[in-house]
Amino acid sequence: MTSSLIAEKLEQAHQILGELGLDAWMVFVRESSHGGDPALSYIYDGAFTWQSALIVTRAGDRIAIVGKFDDGAVRATGVWTEVISYVQSIHGPLVETLRRIDPQTLALDFSVDDYAADGLTHGMYLLLLKYLEGTPYAERLVSAVGVVGALRGRKSPNELARIEKAIETAQTIFDEVGRFAAPGKTEREVARFMQDAAARRGVGLAWSQPCPIVNTGPHSMIGHGVPSDLQIEPGHILHIDFGVQQEGYCSDLQRCWYVPRPGEHAPPESAARAFEAVVQGISVAADRLKPGVEGWQVDQAARKIITAAGYPEYGHALGHHVGCTAHDGGGILGPRWERYGNTPFRKAEPGNVFTLEPSIEDAGGCGCLGIEEMVVVTDAGCRWLSDRQMTLPCLGTSKSLDNRLQN
Amino acid sequence: MTSSLIAEKLEQAHQILGELGLDAWMVFVRESSHGGDPALSYIYDGAFTWQSALIVTRAGDRIAIVGKFDDGAVRATGVWTEVISYVQSIHGPLVETLRRIDPQTLALDFSVDDYAADGLTHGMYLLLLKYLEGTPYAERLVSAVGVVGALRGRKSPNELARIEKAIETAQTIFDEVGRFAAPGKTEREVARFMQDAAARRGVGLAWSQPCPIVNTGPHSMIGHGVPSDLQIEPGHILHIDFGVQQEGYCSDLQRCWYVPRPGEHAPPESAARAFEAVVQGISVAADRLKPGVEGWQVDQAARKIITAAGYPEYGHALGHHVGCTAHDGGGILGPRWERYGNTPFRKAEPGNVFTLEPSIEDAGGCGCLGIEEMVVVTDAGCRWLSDRQMTLPCLGTSKSLDNRLQN
Repeated sequence: MTSSLIAEKLEQAHQILGELGLDAWMVFVRESSHGGDPALSYIYDGAFTWQSALIVTRAGDRIAIVGKFDDGAVRATGVWTEVISYVQSIHGPLVETLRRIDPQTLALDFSVDDYAADGLTHGMYLLLLKYLEGTPYAERLVSAVGVVGALRGRKSPNELARIEKAIETAQTIFDEVGRFAAPGKTEREVARFMQDAAARRGVGLAWSQPCPIVNTGPHSMIGHGVPSDLQIEPGHILHIDFGVQQEGYCSDLQRCWYVPRPGEHAPPESAARAFEAVVQGISVAADRLKPGVEGWQVDQAARKIITAAGYPEYGHALGHHVGCTAHDGGGILGPRWERYGNTPFRKAEPGNVFTLEPSIEDAGGCGCLGIEEMVVVTDAGCRWLSDRQMTLPCLGTSKSLDNRLQN
Repeated sequence: MTSSLIAEKLEQAHQILGELGLDAWMVFVRESSHGGDPALSYIYDGAFTWQSALIVTRAGDRIAIVGKFDDGAVRATGVWTEVISYVQSIHGPLVETLRRIDPQTLALDFSVDDYAADGLTHGMYLLLLKYLEGTPYAERLVSAVGVVGALRGRKSPNELARIEKAIETAQTIFDEVGRFAAPGKTEREVARFMQDAAARRGVGLAWSQPCPIVNTGPHSMIGHGVPSDLQIEPGHILHIDFGVQQEGYCSDLQRCWYVPRPGEHAPPESAARAFEAVVQGISVAADRLKPGVEGWQVDQAARKIITAAGYPEYGHALGHHVGCTAHDGGGILGPRWERYGNTPFRKAEPGNVFTLEPSIEDAGGCGCLGIEEMVVVTDAGCRWLSDRQMTLPCLGTSKSLDNRLQN
């Protein structure tokens, strides 16, 4: 993250601590390029080798306690009010600092439910308990899930502009692949084409392999599977899930095409019906999504559309936050299933960017029909960030996805 | 990591569990592209979105319990004896699997001391405890630090060959920068030159920014600081810490040059003396490094050379493992300081690849003198992987580092 965004986020963190009534938030890491805490990049553009503690307080302090060899880089950022360095152990300076600021609550990055707020490793937690022996602070540790969730979730205008760029790029590549893809081409060739298109533009992919996910026809491996040597054939739905990471922010979209059989000029009823259900699911969800709504309510609205149309419910959430990563943690627009923990109960806030992505795994024997759009929550409701796909084009007969006309 | 290396590592994991008398090792992750467990890449080439458990047992089972959308990709690897998928929650399948294999010890990736064996987040640990309620397994959890340390540390011939390639590439770039660097050039320009040289070869940098670390003269920011606009000047030592990541494996080396003043044809006594002490420290450490020695003993041997020569002791460890990452976790060749925990007490094993990198921060007012070589531990002792730097060349008067003649 660039330094101007970090300054924004540090200011935001301070404000969120006030809202949540928390005295201090501490990011406690080591060898952070080696896995690391996903919240770190919101407040520091770099990595730490030795054990390091970055503390933001409700009172306005920003204290970094870092190894001697990192302190120059931290000071150079200019955003930390105090930089303390050590050689042999962080133990002493850490405890002294805590005694000085004496927080009644010390929020740490752990969460049973929210992976993006769960960057503290178990070993580092145990180490911290050891350091805090003989102090009152081990009793004051709380989860920073609310801090990190709000910090990641509330997009500033700068962040939103970057996400919109990443969406625009992905949409352009979707247009290109709609012209490239044709019967006889394999899933793998289509995937490679899109990866090359991203690389040519100097942007990254929005998630680690496989990105894009490409599914053609009913025998493709649905989900997070690897694009295969299956060929695109007449009668297939070609379904692609793709996004890019550009200037640190991501897009995440799904688009579908129908591959006409000889003599066909439109998708068959079975594919068209599935498409309509998915599009309607997205519309209904967008209507429901506004500040204060809980994620499961939005999911349920779309899920009902799909099942009322006679399809099985989709085996995933309707949507998720998008930000620096495609799956950006925080609350989810998902069902109240055990694996989602309490994330479906989080309330949407203005500035949140979500995907809306219902799907039908078997659209009348043609393959998977999934569309994924992106929206931002506003005070009034939500606003489309992506150009919605409102028709199911026939591959080869349409120059691009007919998706720019509807907004 | 490529599939052939993963097959080797899974076999090795099985063997290590036998040696350590552990029944099972479980990697428990979610959204693993989002931070993730650094041990995962040794057994799976990809990322998991939903909660996933990869279990290797002493009896030879390799069981993957993964979300429905990941199971195709896991099956496609062909190395898992059982792939179980779920939709709503991993809870049931996980507990059933554990009851079936009934391990007396279940090793998890957490460690107070070893970051590379500490990939389990605290939230995931708490979640696991919740899932294990009503079973005997919560009582049987142990640290997998020994498993992960041996797995990362014992390099196969394939891994060693990759490390040697990464060293060769870094050394070539060091030769090039020795011709590029000159008085008037800035640290930042030198760093950019090396980054471009790596990019041109299609290899990555061995660590996240700043790589390389470039220090010229006595006023440079020593350590993990950002290369600055300081210019190379006569009378400086130019010190560079650099490595590349090539085919998934890293090199990590430091080289130094002296920048002669008008009329000088050799480094002054003060720089030459520091250089000799550092080189001798490396030699003595290499003599001491053999299977069974504890890391602190190797560090102490080199540390004594430096202090006996009248310099302050270096504020870091003598050396660390190198593998898929530059700082590869496991035991360290370091002093018994609190921040290193018990890692200086680990015994060296054949196949371990270490750096040897004593340094003198102030070499008689000329700047930082640090040399870093790489060795592999063998049955008999250790073998040089890098071409040692045995002379301190004058920048501009020598075509390359005179470092290929001594081995």
